[in-house]
Amino acid sequence: MNVPAELLAQRLRRASEEAARHDVDLLVVTPGTDLRYLLGIETSTHERLTCLVLAAAGHRAPPALVVPRLEAPGMADLPLDELGVELVTWTDSDDPYLLVSDLAGVPSRMAVVDSMAARHVFGLRDRLPGVGQTLAGPVLAELRMRKDSAEVAELRKAAAAIDRVHARMGELLRPGRTEAQVGADIADAIVAEGHTEAAFVIVGSGPNGASPHHDLSDRVIKPGDVVVVDIGGPLRTGYNSDCTRTYAVGAEPAGDVREIYQVLQAAQEAACQAVRPGATAESIDAAARHIITSAGFGEQFVHRTGHGIGLDVHEEPYIVGGNALELTEGMAFSVEPGIYLDGQWGARIEDIMVVTGDGGERLNGRPRDLVVL
Amino acid sequence: MNVPAELLAQRLRRASEEAARHDVDLLVVTPGTDLRYLLGIETSTHERLTCLVLAAAGHRAPPALVVPRLEAPGMADLPLDELGVELVTWTDSDDPYLLVSDLAGVPSRMAVVDSMAARHVFGLRDRLPGVGQTLAGPVLAELRMRKDSAEVAELRKAAAAIDRVHARMGELLRPGRTEAQVGADIADAIVAEGHTEAAFVIVGSGPNGASPHHDLSDRVIKPGDVVVVDIGGPLRTGYNSDCTRTYAVGAEPAGDVREIYQVLQAAQEAACQAVRPGATAESIDAAARHIITSAGFGEQFVHRTGHGIGLDVHEEPYIVGGNALELTEGMAFSVEPGIYLDGQWGARIEDIMVVTGDGGERLNGRPRDLVVL
Repeated sequence: MNVPAELLAQRLRRASEEAARHDVDLLVVTPGTDLRYLLGIETSTHERLTCLVLAAAGHRAPPALVVPRLEAPGMADLPLDELGVELVTWTDSDDPYLLVSDLAGVPSRMAVVDSMAARHVFGLRDRLPGVGQTLAGPVLAELRMRKDSAEVAELRKAAAAIDRVHARMGELLRPGRTEAQVGADIADAIVAEGHTEAAFVIVGSGPNGASPHHDLSDRVIKPGDVVVVDIGGPLRTGYNSDCTRTYAVGAEPAGDVREIYQVLQAAQEAACQAVRPGATAESIDAAARHIITSAGFGEQFVHRTGHGIGLDVHEEPYIVGGNALELTEGMAFSVEPGIYLDGQWGARIEDIMVVTGDGGERLNGRPRDLVVL
Repeated sequence: MNVPAELLAQRLRRASEEAARHDVDLLVVTPGTDLRYLLGIETSTHERLTCLVLAAAGHRAPPALVVPRLEAPGMADLPLDELGVELVTWTDSDDPYLLVSDLAGVPSRMAVVDSMAARHVFGLRDRLPGVGQTLAGPVLAELRMRKDSAEVAELRKAAAAIDRVHARMGELLRPGRTEAQVGADIADAIVAEGHTEAAFVIVGSGPNGASPHHDLSDRVIKPGDVVVVDIGGPLRTGYNSDCTRTYAVGAEPAGDVREIYQVLQAAQEAACQAVRPGATAESIDAAARHIITSAGFGEQFVHRTGHGIGLDVHEEPYIVGGNALELTEGMAFSVEPGIYLDGQWGARIEDIMVVTGDGGERLNGRPRDLVVL
C-alpha cells in the first residue's frame, strides 16, 4: 500500500485532534511504525534525530519533518507539499533538539512515540525544560487500532500468506529433523509465500513447546512429539501475519495430550466467538481463561490471550485482564491462549481476528484440531 | 565470541565503577548491544520490560536481571549464578517497573541505556519519582569504546570479510546493471563471506553518489559512472564491518573527477595518519576537513569524518568537530571523508582504524585509488 496523500492528510489531522483530546500540545514522532502510519516513511531509526513535529489541533504551527541533511534526499518522494509538512534539515554541527523547540511554540505537554530512544527523549526534555513528557501511544493507538478497509485487506492478505505456510507443514515438520532445520525451511516458505522476511519462527517441540517464547534449537523432533509452530512476518506494505498451530508429529501423542488440547481448543473457540463490538478486551481474555482455569490449567496459561496487530506485530489493543477497552469495528488482534506443561509439552492456537459490524472475522483458516502430521 | 564469564564479570564490575564515577547510582540496561556487551544476551527488545538492574559501586544491591516469565527459559544458558546476577521474573499481571523500584534501593540518579524505549523510560520515571534520569551511554562508552584484544580480533575478522566482498566488485559492478541488481549480489556476497546479514548496502551511482545515505535504486549504471559502494554487516559474534570504496565503472571518468578524488584520498590518508594515542577525535576530523576545505570543497563534505564501531555500527567515539576526546589504545572507528557534488557524483573512502600503542592500525586493506572496473 503506497498510502494515498489524502489518507495521510486525514491521519495527520486526526492525530492532531486526538492529541488535543488527550491534553497534549505537541506530538514528536521518530522513525518507526507510527511515522510509517502518519507519513509513509519507512526509514529505520538512527542515532541522528529524524522526527515529525505535529502540533495539536488548535495550535498554529504547521507540521514539520526534522531530518539530518544527508538523509533529506531519501524524503524526496514524500508528498510533503501536498500535506503541508515543512522539511527542516540539520547538519552534524547543529543541535536538532533546539530546532524542535523552535518549531514547538510553547507547549505545556508533549507526547513522544513509545519507541523513541532515551537519547532523543532526554534531548527534547533538556531543550524544552518544564514541558511535561508523556507517551504518544495512547493518542496514536486511537487511530492505529481501528483499521480502515485497506488495512484490513492487507491483514487478510498476510493471514492468507501465513496460512499457505502452515498448509505446507506436512512436508516440513518431519521426525528426525531438528527444530532449526524445520525453522530454516519455514523461514524460506514465509518469504516464498509473499512476506518480505520471516520476522519470527518458533518451532517448540516436546518440552521446548512448554516455553512460549522458545524459538529454535538443535533438538531432533521425535515421533509422538507435540510441536508448537508460531510464525509470521510483514508484507511489503508493512502489515504483519502471526499464526500459531500445534501439531503432533509422526504418531498419536501419548497420555492426556488430546484431552488437554481439547480444553485449549474450546478456550480459543470461546474467545473468538466472544469477539463483537461492545465486548471489552478483558472479556475476550476471560472467555479463554475461564475455560482453561475451570479445567485446572489456569497456572499453565502464563500469558495474555492476545495482542493487536497491524504495522507492528504487537500493538493495541491488548487482550488482557484489566483492559476494559470496548472493541469497535476495525480492531484487529490475535486470540492465542496456550497451555504449557513445564518440562513436558505445550500447545497454543492463534488466529488473527478483526471486529466487524456485528461480530468478528477470523482471518486465518487452517484447521485448529491437533493434526497428526 | 561466546564471552567468557570472567570477562562479563569484569565488565559488570567496571560498569558499576564507571557509574559511580559519573555520579549515577543505578544503571538500567534494556536489550540491545549494551546488554549483549554486559551479559551476552542477544534478545531484541519487546514491549515487555527486560532489563539488567546494576547498582553503582558502593551500593549494596546485587545486580538483577528482570525478565518476563515467558522469556526466562531463554536465559537458561547465561552464567547468572557465576556472575552473581539474580533472575527476577514477572507476568503480565505484574508491574515490572515496581519490581525495578523494589530492587533499586533509593537512588538519586539513574542512567538508562540510550536506546531504551520511551515507554520504559517513563515507566521507570513514574515508579521512581524524584529520581533523576540520565543516559547510560557516557558511562558504558567508557568501557565499550576501548576494545580488548578479543574484540579487536573480531573487528579485524569483520574487516577482512568485507574486504573480500570489495575484492569481488569487478564481477558485480558492471555497466548495464541497476544499483538494485548489484546491491542484491553484494548482499549475498556479504553473507557468503561470513556475515550473518547484510546490514547496509549502498550503491550510489552517478548523481545518486552525491547523496551520502542513498542506498539502492533502479538506476542503470553507465560506463564512466563514479559509484560509491558502502557496505557492511555483523559477524555471528555481533561485531560489525563497514567499508566504503568508490569505483569508476567501464570507462575513465570525465572532467575533473580524478583531480577532486585525489583531494579526497589525500584527506582520508592524512586523517588515518593522524590517528595515535593522545590525539583528539576532533583533530582527526580536522586533518581530513582541512585538506578538503583548502581545496575548496568544504561545503561538499556534509558529514563528520567517522564513528566508532563494535557491537554497534555507529557508537563512540565520534570523529567530529567539537569532540575533544583523547584517543587511547583499543579505540576503533571509521575514517570516511566524502565529497558530494549535488546532481553530479560523489565519492567516499572509508577504513576502520584501531588505535595502537603508538599509532593506528588500518583494518581494511583494499586499494584506495579510484579504480576503473
